[in-house]
Amino acid sequence: MRRRAGRGSYDRAVIDAILDEGLVGHVGFVADGQPYVIPVLYARENESIYIHGSPLSRLLGQLREAVPMCLTVTLLDGVVFARSAFHHSLNYRSVVVLGEGRLIDDNEAKRAALHRVVEHVAAARPADVRGPNDKELDATEVVAIAIREASAKSRTGPPIDGAEDMGIPTWAGVLPLSLVAGTPVPDVDCGQPIPDYVRRYARA
Amino acid sequence: MRRRAGRGSYDRAVIDAILDEGLVGHVGFVADGQPYVIPVLYARENESIYIHGSPLSRLLGQLREAVPMCLTVTLLDGVVFARSAFHHSLNYRSVVVLGEGRLIDDNEAKRAALHRVVEHVAAARPADVRGPNDKELDATEVVAIAIREASAKSRTGPPIDGAEDMGIPTWAGVLPLSLVAGTPVPDVDCGQPIPDYVRRYARA
Repeated sequence: MRRRAGRGSYDRAVIDAILDEGLVGHVGFVADGQPYVIPVLYARENESIYIHGSPLSRLLGQLREAVPMCLTVTLLDGVVFARSAFHHSLNYRSVVVLGEGRLIDDNEAKRAALHRVVEHVAAARPADVRGPNDKELDATEVVAIAIREASAKSRTGPPIDGAEDMGIPTWAGVLPLSLVAGTPVPDVDCGQPIPDYVRRYARA
Repeated sequence: MRRRAGRGSYDRAVIDAILDEGLVGHVGFVADGQPYVIPVLYARENESIYIHGSPLSRLLGQLREAVPMCLTVTLLDGVVFARSAFHHSLNYRSVVVLGEGRLIDDNEAKRAALHRVVEHVAAARPADVRGPNDKELDATEVVAIAIREASAKSRTGPPIDGAEDMGIPTWAGVLPLSLVAGTPVPDVDCGQPIPDYVRRYARA
């Protein structure tokens, strides 16, 4: 993915749309000089990003100490086939968030953040399931990352080959890629109807 | 994504399969104490991962100094809808690679690495396009990350609710997700036929 003028944005609406469409983010933190990048389920709410995990995890252990972190969300939109190897690229939208993590201690705030995480998976889902009990809350750490800085980058559109390459006899263009939901697989003991938010699941 | 026994693997074949199926990785590095996570197109070859970019990019500037880095590749396989909020999860496969970056200076080695990157996008593609010329090689920095440590993690299968929740009247199961190719969009000046590797594009 190359740097090109015009691909960056600090537009809040653009950033929020990408964060809300994404399902998995990659969070980066440093331990003893070694950077780690870990995939996480997350949710955005106003100026915060919530992530959660086991109190035993290295990830949460790092983030709760208010150290600087980074959360990146990338949506892959297509493969760009150019006539020259050099101009091959990917169409994508991504957001990089920088900020500090803060452990949420209060059980009510923790419950609200986890509610938001399930909402991020499917907006209507929290109403259909049992919320976390005290034992489950104790077994989950939730970190709120206050967004200090966020920026979006993207590439869209066709390949951009030089004029001297336009005659090369090879197919050039874009192959769109998207995350597509398949046929829901009911749990073995489940006789309930498939809800619309599962049947017509879409991130965008 | 929760820690669970049995989800981790150091099996080389498992790790390589995930690295080869992924298209975008997330590379983590540290600058002035701040971790950054950046999406990159990459390619694996034996014990190395290649990434490339503009010599101006912060990413490559950091990696070429042989500082510790991390490359993580995540494949999202499904959403796990449980009867309790707590047991919602994602099915996924991911690999975390730790290692040090080394700038590839030699033009022939650089050309070979970029060939491998285009192969990673589509194995048959390099033969169909013009390879990089000297000017393009000068405008591209290529970093080889020697894999020092790599591990895979995954979650598969149905939701795992507690016995006390099995009677909750809500749909539970897995919604499979996959990265799907759409209809190829030819470049405006391209009258060439769509090759099979584009028409039947698949990562797995």
